[in-house]
Amino acid sequence: MSQPSVWYELISVCPHTKARRGRLHTPHGTVETPAFMPVGTQGSVKTVSAEDLELMGFEQILSNTYHLSLRPTGDRLEKLGGLHKFMGWMGSILTDSGGYQVMSLSNMRDMKEEGVTFKSHLDGRQMFLSPEKSIQLQKQYGVDISMCLDECPPYPCSREEAATAMERTHRWAHRNLEARTEGQAVFGIVQGGVHMDLRTESAGYMSALPFEGFAVGGVSVGEPSEMQYPVVTHTAPLLPADKVRYLMGVGHPADILHAVSSGIDLFDCVLPTRMARHHALYTLQGRANISNKKWEEHDGPVDEDSVFPPLERYSAAYLKHLFKANEPLGPRLASLHNLWFYGRLMREIRDAIETQSWPELMARYAKA
Amino acid sequence: MSQPSVWYELISVCPHTKARRGRLHTPHGTVETPAFMPVGTQGSVKTVSAEDLELMGFEQILSNTYHLSLRPTGDRLEKLGGLHKFMGWMGSILTDSGGYQVMSLSNMRDMKEEGVTFKSHLDGRQMFLSPEKSIQLQKQYGVDISMCLDECPPYPCSREEAATAMERTHRWAHRNLEARTEGQAVFGIVQGGVHMDLRTESAGYMSALPFEGFAVGGVSVGEPSEMQYPVVTHTAPLLPADKVRYLMGVGHPADILHAVSSGIDLFDCVLPTRMARHHALYTLQGRANISNKKWEEHDGPVDEDSVFPPLERYSAAYLKHLFKANEPLGPRLASLHNLWFYGRLMREIRDAIETQSWPELMARYAKA
Repeated sequence: MSQPSVWYELISVCPHTKARRGRLHTPHGTVETPAFMPVGTQGSVKTVSAEDLELMGFEQILSNTYHLSLRPTGDRLEKLGGLHKFMGWMGSILTDSGGYQVMSLSNMRDMKEEGVTFKSHLDGRQMFLSPEKSIQLQKQYGVDISMCLDECPPYPCSREEAATAMERTHRWAHRNLEARTEGQAVFGIVQGGVHMDLRTESAGYMSALPFEGFAVGGVSVGEPSEMQYPVVTHTAPLLPADKVRYLMGVGHPADILHAVSSGIDLFDCVLPTRMARHHALYTLQGRANISNKKWEEHDGPVDEDSVFPPLERYSAAYLKHLFKANEPLGPRLASLHNLWFYGRLMREIRDAIETQSWPELMARYAKA
Repeated sequence: MSQPSVWYELISVCPHTKARRGRLHTPHGTVETPAFMPVGTQGSVKTVSAEDLELMGFEQILSNTYHLSLRPTGDRLEKLGGLHKFMGWMGSILTDSGGYQVMSLSNMRDMKEEGVTFKSHLDGRQMFLSPEKSIQLQKQYGVDISMCLDECPPYPCSREEAATAMERTHRWAHRNLEARTEGQAVFGIVQGGVHMDLRTESAGYMSALPFEGFAVGGVSVGEPSEMQYPVVTHTAPLLPADKVRYLMGVGHPADILHAVSSGIDLFDCVLPTRMARHHALYTLQGRANISNKKWEEHDGPVDEDSVFPPLERYSAAYLKHLFKANEPLGPRLASLHNLWFYGRLMREIRDAIETQSWPELMARYAKA
């Protein structure tokens, strides 16, 4: 078998934790891990452009199969040369399978073994998604990494529902793999809810299949972090050490630090851009609400230690003014700030593993 | 008398028209004229930042005294070190006087000789604007150029109304000048509506006063271009040749070309950014509606000859998608495109005057 298009290289392991320093090799470049993927739901990371992402040092982003299938559609993206060319991003791209959005966004859906029939949240048009269809769409997008279509149960759900969704996810895993075409990388997804025995079973089942990487799914679906952390701690080490490990949809900086220390390599989350649009700036001192009156005449950054250098010229007072005046530059500057904060967090995580200084890193981000 | 803080240097005159190539020297740098000022109404040119404006080569922007007086307020801007520092823009800034917004935005107003009492369009708070107050606010903002408070009558208005507004503008001109403080540049404004004899009278009256520059006001207030052009053609040459000439609120590329050929040096207009938010891109082939179905699979720019180099990677199909999907990146990329188009127009205007190739320039922009 030839070298797969996507493969993981383990560089070193943290002496204090299970954190791994590695590299994910993809057709669109190497991703230094642990890594965070900004989320470009509809082929655009909200308010920022491809060159902004390059400037901030990101190497891989996530986009959403469900949204792209509605517009511009898989056929059109294929015709236009794929998602990379379409959005002007020449770094690596991973797309989710669409399963999560079908569950969370569409009102009417009919889940069967063959696949799920649902109505578009945009125009009510009836659509159908199956493992084969999801893999085919992601192939049309031309992304570096496609995700398996899984069944992701909401939280809370009964043990029986979690088991049923897990079992369907396992059966569908084979169909995802069979639908895969030459050179297309597919990651498997572990389910099992908050039940450790199901997680053990799912990790074991998936690990035996020839995926290029493995994700922990069904996390960050509404459960409190005291339930999320044990699932991550339990599941991550059960995944193959020679493949990349991806925790879907996570999360807050503290969640990422926890998951990395459990052995997770890859993250995506809408928080930095969504929080930015809701006036919240990440800093080493915690999240700051830029609309708070206290910034009104603050002639400096919100946190001296959390300044994205190109934004140095903008004071907290200016940012607060932009939000108050509904200027579109406000959400943009805040998004750049937050994405840069996440990018820096990941760089410092990688450094801390290499320099064996994990405790110092945890102390630095203790309030973040 | 010492060198004024703002002065105009005439370099050459077009052999084909009355167009002037010059330089406007200001405390925050030299502005090559003819020049276009992007409009940053509330201390932000919508969707773009100070470094974007630098990248596009702009040297002077306009901001609005009325809006800034409501928020962040003159007192706060002064406390924070002025508008340049506040918005991170180290180029030159001109502010209008607030008179136009008082007329166009506030519902309740009471115009008296002393000044105008009006209600804020934001919260209904009662405010007062007079020549002295306007000049004081612009001083607090710390801008390079302040404009006289004038009375700008709407279109249409009777000859009598135009004359009355002009006469008040003349009386107020003295109060504007008396309120001026050391080192503060103030431009006078010529009124007179569409009446050539009033324009002659107003230009003569204003030209005799010690302003650092002169504006043609009361244009672009709703009148058709067949009425705007004669006013500009008539008035511009009546203004002192050794001072800069500014046509307020104009306009379309064709309007700018016409006004430059009449001897105007300075322009401001919301069109490039406003049109961008309404899906319209300026090109040498005319304005293109990016939401038109024909761009859906157009894998290239809207106009090969109108591409802002940093946006080269984005196709018309991508831009159309961004607007359709309500992605905030759409208005931003369109604004950058349009502002760059205007910036390039002005560069090519300056080149055409220098190289005596005005007819070729007019041919190039014939459809724009």
